[in-house]
Amino acid sequence: MMSSGSAIVAGVGPEQGLGAALARCFAKNGLHVFIFGRSEDRLHRVASTIQRSGGAVTPIAADVTIENSVQSLFDQIRARCDRIHVAAYNVDSNIPAPFLETSTETFTNLWQQNCLGAFLFAKQLMSIMQAQKQGTVFFTGATASLRARPPFTAFATAKAGLRALAQGLAREFSPQGIHVVHTIIDGVIDGDRARQQFPEFVQAKGVDGLLELDAIAQTYWAIHQQPRSAWTHELDLRPYKEIF
Amino acid sequence: MMSSGSAIVAGVGPEQGLGAALARCFAKNGLHVFIFGRSEDRLHRVASTIQRSGGAVTPIAADVTIENSVQSLFDQIRARCDRIHVAAYNVDSNIPAPFLETSTETFTNLWQQNCLGAFLFAKQLMSIMQAQKQGTVFFTGATASLRARPPFTAFATAKAGLRALAQGLAREFSPQGIHVVHTIIDGVIDGDRARQQFPEFVQAKGVDGLLELDAIAQTYWAIHQQPRSAWTHELDLRPYKEIF
Amino acid sequence: MMSSGSAIVAGVGPEQGLGAALARCFAKNGLHVFIFGRSEDRLHRVASTIQRSGGAVTPIAADVTIENSVQSLFDQIRARCDRIHVAAYNVDSNIPAPFLETSTETFTNLWQQNCLGAFLFAKQLMSIMQAQKQGTVFFTGATASLRARPPFTAFATAKAGLRALAQGLAREFSPQGIHVVHTIIDGVIDGDRARQQFPEFVQAKGVDGLLELDAIAQTYWAIHQQPRSAWTHELDLRPYKEIF
Amino acid sequence: MMSSGSAIVAGVGPEQGLGAALARCFAKNGLHVFIFGRSEDRLHRVASTIQRSGGAVTPIAADVTIENSVQSLFDQIRARCDRIHVAAYNVDSNIPAPFLETSTETFTNLWQQNCLGAFLFAKQLMSIMQAQKQGTVFFTGATASLRARPPFTAFATAKAGLRALAQGLAREFSPQGIHVVHTIIDGVIDGDRARQQFPEFVQAKGVDGLLELDAIAQTYWAIHQQPRSAWTHELDLRPYKEIF
Repeated sequence: MMSSGSAIVAGVGPEQGLGAALARCFAKNGLHVFIFGRSEDRLHRVASTIQRSGGAVTPIAADVTIENSVQSLFDQIRARCDRIHVAAYNVDSNIPAPFLETSTETFTNLWQQNCLGAFLFAKQLMSIMQAQKQGTVFFTGATASLRARPPFTAFATAKAGLRALAQGLAREFSPQGIHVVHTIIDGVIDGDRARQQFPEFVQAKGVDGLLELDAIAQTYWAIHQQPRSAWTHELDLRPYKEIF
Repeated sequence: MMSSGSAIVAGVGPEQGLGAALARCFAKNGLHVFIFGRSEDRLHRVASTIQRSGGAVTPIAADVTIENSVQSLFDQIRARCDRIHVAAYNVDSNIPAPFLETSTETFTNLWQQNCLGAFLFAKQLMSIMQAQKQGTVFFTGATASLRARPPFTAFATAKAGLRALAQGLAREFSPQGIHVVHTIIDGVIDGDRARQQFPEFVQAKGVDGLLELDAIAQTYWAIHQQPRSAWTHELDLRPYKEIF
Repeated sequence: MMSSGSAIVAGVGPEQGLGAALARCFAKNGLHVFIFGRSEDRLHRVASTIQRSGGAVTPIAADVTIENSVQSLFDQIRARCDRIHVAAYNVDSNIPAPFLETSTETFTNLWQQNCLGAFLFAKQLMSIMQAQKQGTVFFTGATASLRARPPFTAFATAKAGLRALAQGLAREFSPQGIHVVHTIIDGVIDGDRARQQFPEFVQAKGVDGLLELDAIAQTYWAIHQQPRSAWTHELDLRPYKEIF
Repeated sequence: MMSSGSAIVAGVGPEQGLGAALARCFAKNGLHVFIFGRSEDRLHRVASTIQRSGGAVTPIAADVTIENSVQSLFDQIRARCDRIHVAAYNVDSNIPAPFLETSTETFTNLWQQNCLGAFLFAKQLMSIMQAQKQGTVFFTGATASLRARPPFTAFATAKAGLRALAQGLAREFSPQGIHVVHTIIDGVIDGDRARQQFPEFVQAKGVDGLLELDAIAQTYWAIHQQPRSAWTHELDLRPYKEIF
């Protein structure tokens, strides 16, 4: 039951979402993909699609902000695969609000989802990859990783933390052969979330005005393919029309 | 019992520490200073020194990472003063460790001290300053606010979050007349902490090789004095010999 | 005829301009100020005002982008003073244009004014200050120093170069006791240039919506006063209402 | 004699250099490559290698810092191809020196090579690509693009200018369908230059301790392949062991 090449994607939600797109991309490239997310339903829908295309996938519902859950996720992975080639921490939780209307619960929750979960994920992953002396891990950032603006101050606080985490990991683990990448997703992803939450905005953006899921996944894969003699540790991704 | 001009410093510890130095500076400039810290002993020592110099000070022992405590701190302040001119969130908690030896407790604790406490502090303070349409608030950052390096990844994650918080606050509240400043303390402060923890390092740095407490406080005060037509939102402070 | 304390300001133009304001500030603080600019008329007007207030000033018309001129300027200074306390390179030349309408002449000229002149100025100044083992020098940057946007690409190219120059100088000369400061003037200065070129914009900004000359000069002076144990190497200055 | 798909590389020198490697990569992917450089000898050696592998190449010796030369280069290209898919400005000129030993000639020359040439190149290229509504252009930067340090202050000044130029172009031309990319080459390239100038350093770096030419070219090509819905405008490239 052992797979010899595996991938992990944390933060898999809707089928038309970045987590699912990365999972499909990794599976299409021959890796057994472990996908994590909070909704069992959504995970199973994503898994079904991958399986119908001939891919290998293991969905595991879990809350990546809880240490024990993450430990248990990785125990299952350790039992079932012998090598993790690539992983992505793709959890992205945002609740815009004016600062004085941002509750302590929201502030804490955004940090847990965007930052603490990445720490717990990295703790497990780095110890595996350190033993492998190899592997790629992506942390998905946002415009707010670089600039904090209202009403996104709480989100930016968490994403800036995530970026620092990724940078610290890159500095510590790159010399050990582990490729740590921080991506800055600058723009709106053309997926279920945007289409449901602000359909008119999506319409107005026109062709290629939003970030296409497969286009993002293509770049993640290209970066994963980089020989270790020329690694990228941070890059931005935005639609050609995006103002920045 | 009403003071007409007040200051607040959160994160007051040893007498030769930045919190205490800022408190002395604000008191010397005629403000009634409320000082927060976890150790009642230390607070009282700092308060005594200020009082002996003729300054007005109110020490309040409290944990600024707990919402109720911060609420109660500010309730006391609201009852006793009618105007806060300047405030500083100066809590600085650092526990260096290789990433794989950084416990979840440490990671969380550093975030609570350096970042969540600043959020709770700012929630109370901004609502007061918004009503005043005036006031200055400093958030004390570090080298790690800009660059994450092992063994400081957890600290950098928290400090990068703090910087984003300060930046978001500056963008939201500056137009309302509130001056939000993020300082990057790049170097070692010549205080009790350094002298006790690494006396040889202090010795080796020579004259002016460390950040002098009064020199830092002098700049905080100068920035507080800026007319609102030319405000600084971020600045670095480092000894002249510091490599950067 | 020797003055024992001097200042230099390069880039002195209209009376209500930053160069003139810095010169007045330095003179008011007791320094003999050497002022450079291309227009003899303007220099003399600025000098007269300073002299009427009891200040000491020497106006020298010169083009700071020509090596021989700068050499000759400093020869005059060397002959007439024994110590330069503070200097500012304040030349600011901007010609907005869409990229394809930017001539090579304009591109080169903006670089010469904003960047090459600073190099020539610094070459002379650093050798004097190195001998003194002391001194402060300011390089005045702009929003464009950090971000290049059309129609300011040529200006941003020059100002980004200036920032790098200042940063390299800070790293090389700070350990020798020379304080090198880069300022980011983010906003419109309330001076003759803005009032003549876009009076309606000035009107619309309202009270304190533009950068006041004296407010900027106040901060330059405060930074010059920093003890060398806590130096600032870069800081931003913007009106409280400025969007950033 | 018309080619329907072309590429341009400016700054082609030694066979084991980045310019040559990019040219080989573009040729291998089926494009007719125009290569510019100052040495006819070197250009012909690079061209021969490409031709022996079945690639199409046109070497043109020229100084890209002279407006007329660049105009004439592009006139030749316009006459011989109908579409430029991708171009790279890869000139990289560095002369380390302490600041006070940096001549005005060196300072100016580094700016001309690294920055003015890019402006002249972009002026020609953008007008062609604007008509095409398509195309990718790379500007090759360095560690110094982000940080100025002695003895590289002059180089950093030029490279910071180049980065601003690339950023301004990206903001102006991306919405018109032109992909402008700035790369930060952070480390030493494993090529003729390093092997001749500091062979012991190369030896000490070990396997994959330097940037491999083909590895860099692979990433340039992958970025060129990005669909316009998810473009990268800046990315770093460094060996896995590089300290950053």
